[in-house]
Amino acid sequence: MTPTPTASAGYGVHSEVGRLRKVMVCRPGLAHRRLTPTNSDELLFDDVLWVENAQRDHADFVDKLATRGVDVVELHDVLAATLQLTGARDWVLDRKIVPERVGLGLVDSTRAYLESLTPARLAELLIGGLATFDLPDEYRPPAIGLARESTGAREYLMPPLPNTLYTRDTTCWLYGGLTLNPLYWPARHDETLIYQAIYLYHPDFVGSRVWWGDPGRDWGQSTFEGGDIMPVGDGVVLMGMSERTSRQAITQVSAALFAQGAAERVVVAGMPKLRAAMHLDTVFTFVDRDVVTLYPTITDAVHAFTLLPSDRAPGFDVVDEGSAAFTDVVARAMGLDSLRTIDTGGDVYESERQQWDSGNNAVALEPGVVFTYDRNTLTNTLLRKAGIEVITIVGAELGRGRGGGHCMTCPIIRDPLDGHTRGPAATYPPAEAQEVLDADRR
Amino acid sequence: MTPTPTASAGYGVHSEVGRLRKVMVCRPGLAHRRLTPTNSDELLFDDVLWVENAQRDHADFVDKLATRGVDVVELHDVLAATLQLTGARDWVLDRKIVPERVGLGLVDSTRAYLESLTPARLAELLIGGLATFDLPDEYRPPAIGLARESTGAREYLMPPLPNTLYTRDTTCWLYGGLTLNPLYWPARHDETLIYQAIYLYHPDFVGSRVWWGDPGRDWGQSTFEGGDIMPVGDGVVLMGMSERTSRQAITQVSAALFAQGAAERVVVAGMPKLRAAMHLDTVFTFVDRDVVTLYPTITDAVHAFTLLPSDRAPGFDVVDEGSAAFTDVVARAMGLDSLRTIDTGGDVYESERQQWDSGNNAVALEPGVVFTYDRNTLTNTLLRKAGIEVITIVGAELGRGRGGGHCMTCPIIRDPLDGHTRGPAATYPPAEAQEVLDADRR
Amino acid sequence: MTPTPTASAGYGVHSEVGRLRKVMVCRPGLAHRRLTPTNSDELLFDDVLWVENAQRDHADFVDKLATRGVDVVELHDVLAATLQLTGARDWVLDRKIVPERVGLGLVDSTRAYLESLTPARLAELLIGGLATFDLPDEYRPPAIGLARESTGAREYLMPPLPNTLYTRDTTCWLYGGLTLNPLYWPARHDETLIYQAIYLYHPDFVGSRVWWGDPGRDWGQSTFEGGDIMPVGDGVVLMGMSERTSRQAITQVSAALFAQGAAERVVVAGMPKLRAAMHLDTVFTFVDRDVVTLYPTITDAVHAFTLLPSDRAPGFDVVDEGSAAFTDVVARAMGLDSLRTIDTGGDVYESERQQWDSGNNAVALEPGVVFTYDRNTLTNTLLRKAGIEVITIVGAELGRGRGGGHCMTCPIIRDPLDGHTRGPAATYPPAEAQEVLDADRR
Amino acid sequence: MTPTPTASAGYGVHSEVGRLRKVMVCRPGLAHRRLTPTNSDELLFDDVLWVENAQRDHADFVDKLATRGVDVVELHDVLAATLQLTGARDWVLDRKIVPERVGLGLVDSTRAYLESLTPARLAELLIGGLATFDLPDEYRPPAIGLARESTGAREYLMPPLPNTLYTRDTTCWLYGGLTLNPLYWPARHDETLIYQAIYLYHPDFVGSRVWWGDPGRDWGQSTFEGGDIMPVGDGVVLMGMSERTSRQAITQVSAALFAQGAAERVVVAGMPKLRAAMHLDTVFTFVDRDVVTLYPTITDAVHAFTLLPSDRAPGFDVVDEGSAAFTDVVARAMGLDSLRTIDTGGDVYESERQQWDSGNNAVALEPGVVFTYDRNTLTNTLLRKAGIEVITIVGAELGRGRGGGHCMTCPIIRDPLDGHTRGPAATYPPAEAQEVLDADRR
Repeated sequence: MTPTPTASAGYGVHSEVGRLRKVMVCRPGLAHRRLTPTNSDELLFDDVLWVENAQRDHADFVDKLATRGVDVVELHDVLAATLQLTGARDWVLDRKIVPERVGLGLVDSTRAYLESLTPARLAELLIGGLATFDLPDEYRPPAIGLARESTGAREYLMPPLPNTLYTRDTTCWLYGGLTLNPLYWPARHDETLIYQAIYLYHPDFVGSRVWWGDPGRDWGQSTFEGGDIMPVGDGVVLMGMSERTSRQAITQVSAALFAQGAAERVVVAGMPKLRAAMHLDTVFTFVDRDVVTLYPTITDAVHAFTLLPSDRAPGFDVVDEGSAAFTDVVARAMGLDSLRTIDTGGDVYESERQQWDSGNNAVALEPGVVFTYDRNTLTNTLLRKAGIEVITIVGAELGRGRGGGHCMTCPIIRDPLDGHTRGPAATYPPAEAQEVLDADRR
Repeated sequence: MTPTPTASAGYGVHSEVGRLRKVMVCRPGLAHRRLTPTNSDELLFDDVLWVENAQRDHADFVDKLATRGVDVVELHDVLAATLQLTGARDWVLDRKIVPERVGLGLVDSTRAYLESLTPARLAELLIGGLATFDLPDEYRPPAIGLARESTGAREYLMPPLPNTLYTRDTTCWLYGGLTLNPLYWPARHDETLIYQAIYLYHPDFVGSRVWWGDPGRDWGQSTFEGGDIMPVGDGVVLMGMSERTSRQAITQVSAALFAQGAAERVVVAGMPKLRAAMHLDTVFTFVDRDVVTLYPTITDAVHAFTLLPSDRAPGFDVVDEGSAAFTDVVARAMGLDSLRTIDTGGDVYESERQQWDSGNNAVALEPGVVFTYDRNTLTNTLLRKAGIEVITIVGAELGRGRGGGHCMTCPIIRDPLDGHTRGPAATYPPAEAQEVLDADRR
Repeated sequence: MTPTPTASAGYGVHSEVGRLRKVMVCRPGLAHRRLTPTNSDELLFDDVLWVENAQRDHADFVDKLATRGVDVVELHDVLAATLQLTGARDWVLDRKIVPERVGLGLVDSTRAYLESLTPARLAELLIGGLATFDLPDEYRPPAIGLARESTGAREYLMPPLPNTLYTRDTTCWLYGGLTLNPLYWPARHDETLIYQAIYLYHPDFVGSRVWWGDPGRDWGQSTFEGGDIMPVGDGVVLMGMSERTSRQAITQVSAALFAQGAAERVVVAGMPKLRAAMHLDTVFTFVDRDVVTLYPTITDAVHAFTLLPSDRAPGFDVVDEGSAAFTDVVARAMGLDSLRTIDTGGDVYESERQQWDSGNNAVALEPGVVFTYDRNTLTNTLLRKAGIEVITIVGAELGRGRGGGHCMTCPIIRDPLDGHTRGPAATYPPAEAQEVLDADRR
Repeated sequence: MTPTPTASAGYGVHSEVGRLRKVMVCRPGLAHRRLTPTNSDELLFDDVLWVENAQRDHADFVDKLATRGVDVVELHDVLAATLQLTGARDWVLDRKIVPERVGLGLVDSTRAYLESLTPARLAELLIGGLATFDLPDEYRPPAIGLARESTGAREYLMPPLPNTLYTRDTTCWLYGGLTLNPLYWPARHDETLIYQAIYLYHPDFVGSRVWWGDPGRDWGQSTFEGGDIMPVGDGVVLMGMSERTSRQAITQVSAALFAQGAAERVVVAGMPKLRAAMHLDTVFTFVDRDVVTLYPTITDAVHAFTLLPSDRAPGFDVVDEGSAAFTDVVARAMGLDSLRTIDTGGDVYESERQQWDSGNNAVALEPGVVFTYDRNTLTNTLLRKAGIEVITIVGAELGRGRGGGHCMTCPIIRDPLDGHTRGPAATYPPAEAQEVLDADRR
């Protein structure tokens, strides 16, 4: 198959610490204004935010990225640009404003209201949510009475999606293509649809190769979140097997990557089941070619497996790494003698608190230069003593959803460590991927 | 369209208290043996069960039904009979044993193992669940290592479905047809698929008319559970609008019933959001033509609406009943002057405990004759003093999942109160329903 | 001091499995009628009870004990007998009906009401609780308005004490004397006061020797519950160090036992912090001289220590048993080569469920003859196969507070294994304590 | 009794908004360094803190107070000064380092270690806590093994008291005297003892009159927290009756105030039972003579009572204010026509979030000048528009324990609104209490 030349040619993430060139972020906004003490748990935030300050701190982070030469794409902006295309807007609304979601009797008026908005406002509501009481009077049919607003009930016609702040999870660029991830929590399911619209319609993204994933399907137990996934270079991918990223998804994605020549080896980190071990990147991130910051309490308990391509069904072999240390398995996969590790630091209280405050959730600008939250002063000091350049992000508000710089960034272009990219970008959905998926399902 | 004569002709539920003639139940079994203190919450049970005694008590309940002339269909039995048909077995396994659910690398061996079983054993596992460690050695491929059994992790290739005990919820016969319900909790999602297989393949059930529902689709917020639904006669249907039965589903089902001439009026009971008010039938059931047992603490707080057929889209009108008492709205809909009501009984402690123990969850054999749990002696005494014949079920074990006689029975044939049935049974899926659904979706 | 000969001479518990001769129990009653889904968690019950059946099952248990020659003392009865003595009644009411507990403005009327009752009714309310709305009109002063009964608030002037059902915890006879235990949960604090009244005033109990404990003092972190404590014979006492029985109490009690010559060795079972490991006797009980039933998942994780008398302060030496198996440390302490152990039995589900249902919570009538719940059929079968005679108690209701036969019995006289008792009984309160008590009483 | 002239003569709080002259605060410190995701719930914090920044923000708050002429007393400092007196140090350690709290076998060595410290370090540990592993090697006797540090267990010999940050709750100056409050949560019980030591020994505080309270006694249900208590002037005291401040305490304190001529009227705010309504001052504070900021969702649901002095036992009369608005009852008690009220502001989301973030928890410097958190910009704007001068405190870290400026300050001298104080200060401890104390000290 000949790849069609597209705007997205050249997109690809070829390492965890190579030069970051293009990245997706999402600024805090309307969805966070909806957070209250009553609903924050359900929306996966530990506390409410001072939204204006969160926006200020996020803008500062973006500014630091841009100043250092990174092309920053913001989700609201790119979604608004996408929605200017009538076809894209219809595609989204055909999927969001249906009886199953808004209730019969509210479909027409809700759609009519949304059609009346500018693309920018529509993008804001798609991410920030639409409550029944947000509908203007002229768009309120009798059936809205069933929502019982007068009793204080708060129903959404479109749910707020505050976790879009953590762009890392929803899609993953792995070398020359990406995955459109089925997320674990119901509160996040609708995020992926937004990205699919962008990748289907926005001129800068059309033609990107999708290795796996389609939000229009029911994925059952196959949930997959980018916070667990790291393309460390040379065809190696680390995958945290956690509450949120399942064995079912890991086996499918690995097979899809192998079948399409996208990766040569997957190292699976079997994580202990703990809230603190939500994602692999909450306890383990790269800060230089061969240096990681980690939280030993969790990483020491990881049980590692290696998946390798195989000619026979299901397309991979499983190697149980037994009692081998996770860091050693990773080092070997990357062709290194060993990894240098930098702990969270501090005493039992401090290390637990700093891991919680995303102390290990660094994101690299280039080898040896990372962004982290300002509040983890001990971890940051250890990183600096190890020769890492640390640029801080103000974390007072942004961190309350339990994510740091790594979580808030979805790299789209990142250089390989050795200077050359792997694999070509191609059209979506590619013919050969379709065959694999079809075979999968008989 | 000419209905095809089928074995299911004559099926239909035409009231809440007319003579019960045929009913679906599900005996306790393997799924309940899987309940432990660790997983019971997730599986929606408040405590573990002594399974043998639960089976004994359930068998006694079934025996009492059969002795009184009811044709009792048991889910395991009818599912086993269905699975004897190769087509049916393939239909089920094609949907259950897929990479999204069992993980790539386990599909072939899991299927091979299940193919090796008798229909009865396969039916047991479909309801009772299949853990990874249930796979015999000859069916364990290397990929099973990822399930990390040695660490004590318990993963299921097919989840246990202990709530099938409460057959009421999964399907609802409403006059001459039924609904295949999307259930609220993930722990129950797979129940509906089992019923669909039976209705598609089992000779006694093929040809039943399905008003609404298809477990192969994603229903979003449109969840619908039979415990909230009551066809009280003469084309009237009560629907509890609760955590589990949503406005989104109620509007769709009402429109589908109206469009197909299946019902003429829907009374919606807007329930307060409380665990004790899980389903309408946990606080309100009929025990005679015009007599209900109810828990006033909740029913007094119900906000009622009436939905009526309309020629204009979306096919119904909404009447907000404002401050009218729910019982009055129901009485009016049924053409009665009023309902006689029998409270839970006892002081503040006793009434709260008896409602909790399914004291208001009566199921009628015929007008004035009901089954209830033995433990609610005060409520039972009040019923008897009101002239109701009460037949008791031993509830020590069966009630621990918070359901009583009404929850444990799904009527398939129940007489109307005035002796004649409403509407014909027809083939599934019927052409006109398909049109409505298609229109719904544009 | 010369011990005064008293009725309690001869009281003492000299083993875990020697002939049981006299035991304290408490029948279910008013306190359990107060249990509702709303308050059961706070009152430490997992579910509400069918109180009449719980009473029937408890009466049957008592009957079986009595038939086999055990002298059974029932708490309500013995408390009522105690309250017939004016001094005893005043002593109790002086401590219960005070401004700190009932509120200023309600003291006089509440006391007047309670003074008007028969001893039996007063005993029932002391155990079963007194709600503000239980006060008859003539005893309701204006200050009762502050309790806001009309809003549904339920305040108690005396709290219900449903956990008195588990008499094991509140006092422990250890060889020739007893402890009056400070219990862990606030919901149980008032239990001990009741026992103190009995031991201070009831003719059958006056003169008992108290090794340790006084409910009139604040014990801080020193909480101690009988479910963790086992006098296994020959001066050896096992003590579970758990959430409920603290290091602070264990060290004090051990020193008190050693100082008074009551024991020669304490084996501490450091329990993992898990709800299933609430008390030592929920995972480990004796069923014969050298046979125990246990739940290995927990007992294998026990870290054992031995405390031995010392001449130097604080009166004991600590031996850390390191990685030695708890059962081996116990066997050695008892002069046995080893203990025979009988597991909970069954697969991973069954063993977890049976432990939860008090499967390991056996209480011995005599060596090799024990009482257990009927529902744990697998554990009971294993016990029987090992030659143990198992007499069953119906557990459907009694077990819902997570306690079995061992928890429901507080032995007062139990023979040593070798036929001779240890240590003399002595008067209680001792003369020096009496002075304090007299001062206390004003 | 003739009051002895003392340093504390002139102490007294005569209003909520008169000129603040002297105030107690407590800076964040060691106790907050102990907060982790694991223990924060138990210690009543919603999240961990960046302690250095919390200290910076607190210092800024203190500086603003001092700059505006308030004499600020800091708890660590005044406690350290108190502990320089040998008698005071012994008094504290005699109560803290006892077998009931630290365990027998650890008393001597723990005390020896603490005796070896400077008063400042000892003060820091009394507030910040002492873990078993904080004991230096030379102070670790064998009994420390029972704490099982090697398993990761964290036991405290003295518990950390992070809620001392909220000095408002522990003691209340009400006109010319104070109360020493029994606090609701176990995690805060030890706070009051520290204050008692200061009031008994520190030269600046000795002689203060204590209306009620003694941490050496068991107060049962009589818990009382300063966040619920407001001396609004002219002998009127508002008392929130909440989860934390009970009817039992309110009646006692009122009677004590009336009996000592300290107050003439108590207005009780019966609060709905909600986490958001923790204390009265979380939903209602004064910002000017006749102006309050409030959260109507809660204050509209308050049921008010008035307590008035009475010659007959129990010393007060209760007036049920029925459906009268709380603000009207307060206005009437203060001799005002009405109160001007300023709501939290914003839409349903914003008002809920700002109340949560202590938006209504203002503390006045003088009439019309208040301190609040910076993050509640909407509430602050409404206050400013109403003519109130708002000085902001940085709340990013300080607010995570759910308390604002009002909670973090315990006024010691505040002017009356009309310029004259009420009631004389008197010596503390009073002579009769002194005898008890002397006996207590041995």
